[in-house]
Amino acid sequence: MDMKVRGKKFSFAVVRKTLPNGLRVEVDRIEHPGAVLIIPFLTKDKVVFLDQYRPVLGRYLLELPAGTLDKNERPLLCARRELIEETNYKAGRLQRLGRIYPVPGYSTEIIYIYKAEGLTREKGTKDKDEIIRPRILTKMEAKKIFRKGCIHDAKTICGLVLCGWL
Amino acid sequence: MDMKVRGKKFSFAVVRKTLPNGLRVEVDRIEHPGAVLIIPFLTKDKVVFLDQYRPVLGRYLLELPAGTLDKNERPLLCARRELIEETNYKAGRLQRLGRIYPVPGYSTEIIYIYKAEGLTREKGTKDKDEIIRPRILTKMEAKKIFRKGCIHDAKTICGLVLCGWL
Repeated sequence: MDMKVRGKKFSFAVVRKTLPNGLRVEVDRIEHPGAVLIIPFLTKDKVVFLDQYRPVLGRYLLELPAGTLDKNERPLLCARRELIEETNYKAGRLQRLGRIYPVPGYSTEIIYIYKAEGLTREKGTKDKDEIIRPRILTKMEAKKIFRKGCIHDAKTICGLVLCGWL
Repeated sequence: MDMKVRGKKFSFAVVRKTLPNGLRVEVDRIEHPGAVLIIPFLTKDKVVFLDQYRPVLGRYLLELPAGTLDKNERPLLCARRELIEETNYKAGRLQRLGRIYPVPGYSTEIIYIYKAEGLTREKGTKDKDEIIRPRILTKMEAKKIFRKGCIHDAKTICGLVLCGWL
């Protein structure tokens, strides 16, 4: 029998799998509902980033807005909702640029990446347990920070490549 | 008391943390030993990728060689070891290009990224539970595959950006 533990946002289990070569293995697996990453363009040359506190690491990271899908929530609607919650901006247009697996070795998580444009102000209700400060950067500023080795969040790097900023 | 479960490669726990604003929260946390990603340059224009079967996803992904640190293993030595195990190449030179957090929301995992050059053949012992096939690509081929939206592994995308291939 597989062992399964329910966390706050996902469940964790050690599961048995059969490989294409017939071998039976046990692997760690996080069953994750999926997530979105949003690249919010205020103008063609200004994107809203976040300085976000990550309790698991005990430090702040420079990231693009992102969030986990609610139960049965479609990625596009999640992107719209998370953008308002985290930045107080509503997207006029959302375009999907791609999708990534952040940790294919142990999590089913897939992150859908969206470019957001036509932003208008809309007051959102921030999750109380999220410590975030918006930080607006130009393309040149973002590139410079990346080259200095100061962007460490993998999904943010992927988003910036997909929108042509890196 | 925090609940903690030991998996095959790491442990999982729901832990209590105090945020910078004083709020006490419970968060999912994977305590991960860390990992490495290697970009093995056969020549200036040829890199060894892998088609790797990911049991958690039930599919193959195009990835760069990577692996988890053994207990007390230094990242550089892990990069050397994993490169031999996964590609049968020994690195003459390894240069660290950067480090990323693949899932800062729920895992302490940090991935150290290395460029490997001066490769020579060395027969390694592949983990039996890893289904991998080497696949050598030029920069143009890798870019084309990325543009078609066929590279989904986040760490591989980050590695390719850091070595100037994307």
